[in-house]
Amino acid sequence: MKKSGIIQSFILFISLFSTIGAQCRAIDYTSFVDPFIGADGGGFVFPGVTMPSGMVKVGPDCNNLDQNAGWDAKGNIVGFSHTHLNGSGGGCKYGNILVMPTVGKVDPVDYSSPRANETAKVGLYSVNLTRYNVGVRISATSHAAIHEYTFPQTDQANILFDMGSFLSSCERQEFVGSEVRILSDNEIEGYSRIRGGWNFSRAYTVYFYAKFDSPATSFGTWKAGALCPNVKSQFDSNEKTGAYVTFNTKGHRTIRMKLGISYMGTNKARHNAEEIASWDLDETKEAAASTWNKILGQVKLDGGSERTKTIFYSSMYRIFFQPTDFTGENPLWQSDKPYYGDYHAIWDTYRATHPFINLLRPTLGGKMVESLVDIYRFDNYMPDARSSNDNGRVQGGTNCDMLIADAMVKEIKGIDYKTALEAMKKNATVPPGDDERKQGRGGLWDYNRIGYVSTDFERCCTRTLEYSANDAAIATVANCLGDRETYLKYKKKASSWENMWNPSIESLGFKGFVWPRKADGSWVDTTRFNVFSSGSLTSPFYETFSWEYSFYVPHDMKRLIEKMGGKEIFSRRLDAYFTKSFTGSRDDLLYYTKLVGMCQISNEPSFLAPSLYAYINEPFKTAKIVRQILSTQYDTTKSGVPGNDDSGSMGAWYVFHSLGFYPNAGQDVYLISSPVYPKATITLENGKQIFITAKNASEKNIYIQSCKLNGKPFNNCWFRHADIENGANFEFVMGSKPSAWATNGALPPSMPETEIEH
Amino acid sequence: MKKSGIIQSFILFISLFSTIGAQCRAIDYTSFVDPFIGADGGGFVFPGVTMPSGMVKVGPDCNNLDQNAGWDAKGNIVGFSHTHLNGSGGGCKYGNILVMPTVGKVDPVDYSSPRANETAKVGLYSVNLTRYNVGVRISATSHAAIHEYTFPQTDQANILFDMGSFLSSCERQEFVGSEVRILSDNEIEGYSRIRGGWNFSRAYTVYFYAKFDSPATSFGTWKAGALCPNVKSQFDSNEKTGAYVTFNTKGHRTIRMKLGISYMGTNKARHNAEEIASWDLDETKEAAASTWNKILGQVKLDGGSERTKTIFYSSMYRIFFQPTDFTGENPLWQSDKPYYGDYHAIWDTYRATHPFINLLRPTLGGKMVESLVDIYRFDNYMPDARSSNDNGRVQGGTNCDMLIADAMVKEIKGIDYKTALEAMKKNATVPPGDDERKQGRGGLWDYNRIGYVSTDFERCCTRTLEYSANDAAIATVANCLGDRETYLKYKKKASSWENMWNPSIESLGFKGFVWPRKADGSWVDTTRFNVFSSGSLTSPFYETFSWEYSFYVPHDMKRLIEKMGGKEIFSRRLDAYFTKSFTGSRDDLLYYTKLVGMCQISNEPSFLAPSLYAYINEPFKTAKIVRQILSTQYDTTKSGVPGNDDSGSMGAWYVFHSLGFYPNAGQDVYLISSPVYPKATITLENGKQIFITAKNASEKNIYIQSCKLNGKPFNNCWFRHADIENGANFEFVMGSKPSAWATNGALPPSMPETEIEH
Repeated sequence: MKKSGIIQSFILFISLFSTIGAQCRAIDYTSFVDPFIGADGGGFVFPGVTMPSGMVKVGPDCNNLDQNAGWDAKGNIVGFSHTHLNGSGGGCKYGNILVMPTVGKVDPVDYSSPRANETAKVGLYSVNLTRYNVGVRISATSHAAIHEYTFPQTDQANILFDMGSFLSSCERQEFVGSEVRILSDNEIEGYSRIRGGWNFSRAYTVYFYAKFDSPATSFGTWKAGALCPNVKSQFDSNEKTGAYVTFNTKGHRTIRMKLGISYMGTNKARHNAEEIASWDLDETKEAAASTWNKILGQVKLDGGSERTKTIFYSSMYRIFFQPTDFTGENPLWQSDKPYYGDYHAIWDTYRATHPFINLLRPTLGGKMVESLVDIYRFDNYMPDARSSNDNGRVQGGTNCDMLIADAMVKEIKGIDYKTALEAMKKNATVPPGDDERKQGRGGLWDYNRIGYVSTDFERCCTRTLEYSANDAAIATVANCLGDRETYLKYKKKASSWENMWNPSIESLGFKGFVWPRKADGSWVDTTRFNVFSSGSLTSPFYETFSWEYSFYVPHDMKRLIEKMGGKEIFSRRLDAYFTKSFTGSRDDLLYYTKLVGMCQISNEPSFLAPSLYAYINEPFKTAKIVRQILSTQYDTTKSGVPGNDDSGSMGAWYVFHSLGFYPNAGQDVYLISSPVYPKATITLENGKQIFITAKNASEKNIYIQSCKLNGKPFNNCWFRHADIENGANFEFVMGSKPSAWATNGALPPSMPETEIEH
Repeated sequence: MKKSGIIQSFILFISLFSTIGAQCRAIDYTSFVDPFIGADGGGFVFPGVTMPSGMVKVGPDCNNLDQNAGWDAKGNIVGFSHTHLNGSGGGCKYGNILVMPTVGKVDPVDYSSPRANETAKVGLYSVNLTRYNVGVRISATSHAAIHEYTFPQTDQANILFDMGSFLSSCERQEFVGSEVRILSDNEIEGYSRIRGGWNFSRAYTVYFYAKFDSPATSFGTWKAGALCPNVKSQFDSNEKTGAYVTFNTKGHRTIRMKLGISYMGTNKARHNAEEIASWDLDETKEAAASTWNKILGQVKLDGGSERTKTIFYSSMYRIFFQPTDFTGENPLWQSDKPYYGDYHAIWDTYRATHPFINLLRPTLGGKMVESLVDIYRFDNYMPDARSSNDNGRVQGGTNCDMLIADAMVKEIKGIDYKTALEAMKKNATVPPGDDERKQGRGGLWDYNRIGYVSTDFERCCTRTLEYSANDAAIATVANCLGDRETYLKYKKKASSWENMWNPSIESLGFKGFVWPRKADGSWVDTTRFNVFSSGSLTSPFYETFSWEYSFYVPHDMKRLIEKMGGKEIFSRRLDAYFTKSFTGSRDDLLYYTKLVGMCQISNEPSFLAPSLYAYINEPFKTAKIVRQILSTQYDTTKSGVPGNDDSGSMGAWYVFHSLGFYPNAGQDVYLISSPVYPKATITLENGKQIFITAKNASEKNIYIQSCKLNGKPFNNCWFRHADIENGANFEFVMGSKPSAWATNGALPPSMPETEIEH
């Protein structure tokens, strides 16, 4: 044994010892994570390998390339690409820098393979490619991947790099250009340039650099499908190019590869590849698992079943996939601010994902928000969604406003709130014109002139409702910053939703619904529109319908309840929403829609609704519906997420409610639902802890009977962020029957009537 | 002598023989070109080397880097960069991939040098860098440059590549990122990424690859000013990087370098470098001169002075600098259409530059227009200006509409006119919102609702006037395509300028001026605005004033003349414009403004005015003012262009009027002025010729006494494109006194009253 060998063995020994030691001390929360939960059935969960906010999301892409996260339950594996989104709906994005091991003659067109023994863990994806009898293991750091291919014994063990491959479907990505260059017998680099996709983005370029642990024996490239053996490089003529390297594995069967990607250039990709320090894939895998374990370990659950914990930690894991940290990878401007992307979309994530990040990791949450402000500084508008370095597309309102307000009221540091308010005011005042699906507020001219978005513009009802909530967010931030004029102006505008309230519409005995209205003030006729009318971009209600979204006035529930006829009617109306059947056209709904009554629990417009009983002091009704959804709509299967995971949104909803509360985003308010676990301990970034004990909690004992907060009786069904930001001790007692607990408590705040004193 | 040597000598012999043969046969028109005319004095003419529409525009950049074409009359040379614009005003663009030979210790910060013996010819720039005693010669193909540096005898002869250098001034370009990599002892590559500048563009990346004819003896790189000897590459961390290679020139003193650039990638840049086939710079120089000579030779002038011919061919040369041909260099989308850029701006070039290209080189003109249509297809709007792959910024109207109409009425092939009309209609119907300085029509909401752009929007008068002309262009194209509904709609909208006509404004005895108007219909008070009020982006009149731009109704002069009070008053009013003094604030005008009376001959809003006497049958007045401008406002000095050359606009004005006519762009109409040369022969692309003889023409004999067209008396002071597109023979007789020629002819058409029959 050489000296270096002895040292290596010693290091291995120490390393094993440390690992064992750590296992003795700490719980491996990653063992509860099943990355495949939600990968199928419309969840589009990304089952490959990623670090928290990781730029590299490496995983398999399957035949047809029309699956949003690359992976598909059926069909062949085409290869392993390095960029993905988690849980996105609509058209695909990414799937760039596809690598595939093959055996035999190189075919640049037909190289996909059936698979066997596919497994996914935190930090590791593995599979056997049965066409070639190649074993694949992949792990990753934030900006690089390590691949380990175990080939059969052959002198034609190839690795293909296809710069012409990318995910595509409706709203498809389009190929723009590519280059490849073989640098030496163990190095290769290149790029793939793509445009379009879900957010109709400008062209973006993903560069790569890869290095092998063994020298290749031969190589070649291709362009527009034509193979060029021994040709080292292909230049960009807006054609698809690729390259291959061939190894002799008759002796040593395993080939390892470090691959760095970059949005800047190939030199940067090479620099990023150096993140993989060792050729030992397990070291990278362990480092990834260790990083994830620190995050997951911020919530410790006692009691509860293996099943629920698996759903819980798998859900919590996905919350931290996106937005992606592109800091140091911004090809658009020079800045010392953080640069996050893959806000996809904030319409989805402002409701639960970001509030959860703001609770557990406020420094990270602050970076995400400050990144939005920097995008405004250099790219004109804050995004509602942003991928591949381009804003787009807007779902409804400018819900980045909600993120700013959420951060502001939770006093998150590191954000230039003054500039943020300027960006919010731009949202509210400068029409984006032709770019209204890209950024800003479409139909703003109407909204600011006649008080609502008329039917001259698409998504008129969704927009009016959300702009009202967004204006409340602006008022909130202005209030905190002591800008009285702005506060008063936007507080008033936050009532704009009332201009779309049609008191004459009646359904199931309830009167008054948000309704599409023409620019002249008249209402759309009921023969042309009904309370279940739904649709996508061009519909008055975006991915929802009037019955559902007429509940969406999160900033002024007091006024909404008045409009609906008072508490009693509101209560019955919510009951009806969760129990009466949807009688509209199923064809209008998203194909994967799952309904609980009329509630589309599979999509974000429903997210806050189960908690709204808090505004009429009926927490037991919230408890019932929330626990019903948790136990019936989520499971541990590949179809275990009820809708598109939407960058962890479905996961965040599950996690919050499992802990027993849910945020009203943009406010410092959490609404209590029903804690699932006998004990949950949340460790905050500042080291303080939130203890949530729920005595007698079980599948049956879902109703809170009593509560103490920090030892004192607590009889409100909501609390403020300030109540928990420095730790808290909730002691719930649960029972199987609804109780009177909190039915006479103070109500959660509605749009503040007075401004903060400065 | 080796066999290859014999063959080379033979080829050289043949080549020399052909060259001599050609010289015996053909005139060297390039000998009349002085690339320095207009380089100084605000002309911002680019004096370096370019091919027609060439992507590489290689030339010196001087201290402070605040000169729009890089070159400055004073100060040191910083280096030679490969991208420039010609004659642009406002903020700088480009100046990328700067290379500088130095001697001695490498200093990545202070390396500029004084100069001596600076010369510029078509296809060749040369200079001595006196700090280093290095002789520099540079030539170029379309996508590559060849540099030849003659060093003193030294072992420290360096070539520096500064990826952090770029042109900058007001509306400045900002640095984004860069990389460099030394590939071998005679190869280097890298890129520079810049954003902003005059058109506030998104980040763009210029890649390069350079190869030397001798091996370097040492090398190094730098990053953020810190020198890294022997370090081969620097990755992109949004910092400025650079590289140097050092040669020993104690033996062979001359180092040659081929440098290709690309907007795609480094492999493409390498491919482009191969355009330079030989290390003999003179071969590249001769090829460039030969290509230029073919274009310049399309106009043959007999008679006239060396001075006027020098101005003429130097002006004609610059017409073909831009738009730049980026076909094959589009990093934004895949298309089989031509891809031109550096429309900078169409507001400048639609008036004369493009009509001249459409006359001489309609295939080229068609490619430029089809490129605009493709930009609409993939990038949302046709541009008014576009540089570095991004639209922006709009000066006044959507004058791309004028280009479409100009091509349509001249029946230029290769254009998808149907899609072009769709793009024009988008200009006229979809407000660009926040992007209104980038593309589309700002204030469109007003224009379409109340019939003019109100003072709520900037540039309200310029916009309303130009939108009216643009709408006439839309009507023209719709008419040609048989789209009656569109034709009638836009013909009506083409009268919108009348809504800004304030009949009560009086100046110098003339009544009725275009005037800023509020949204409520009231006029801006004369205490706040006057007929000389001028300004830039935020002013009602953009770079002009009411006295001047109230003449701008190119599509309906008949109606304008009525509004002004009839022919007699109109004639006196034009006289006053050219003779009475400008009595407004000079501070409001552009710093380089040159006035003839009130006429800012140094800027485009004046361009058509001298020809407007044609609309009242007073061609002799046009002759007088045009010849006055030609002889007093242009000369052969470095300050010989009266304003920013604006992508050859000043040159095109000179060339047209020297030939004796000037286009009313967007119409098939040329207005006759006063032919300068006894004989001019224009050879069209189809081989047909236009002969313009002007018997007795001289500096004094400027008035047309009679005219024959194709042997028949011709008594109109205008003609149609159809009259010349297949050749023509104009026989003018000139005299020193105004004559009655054409004073009773048919008037040029105003907005057509009836649509074309289909």
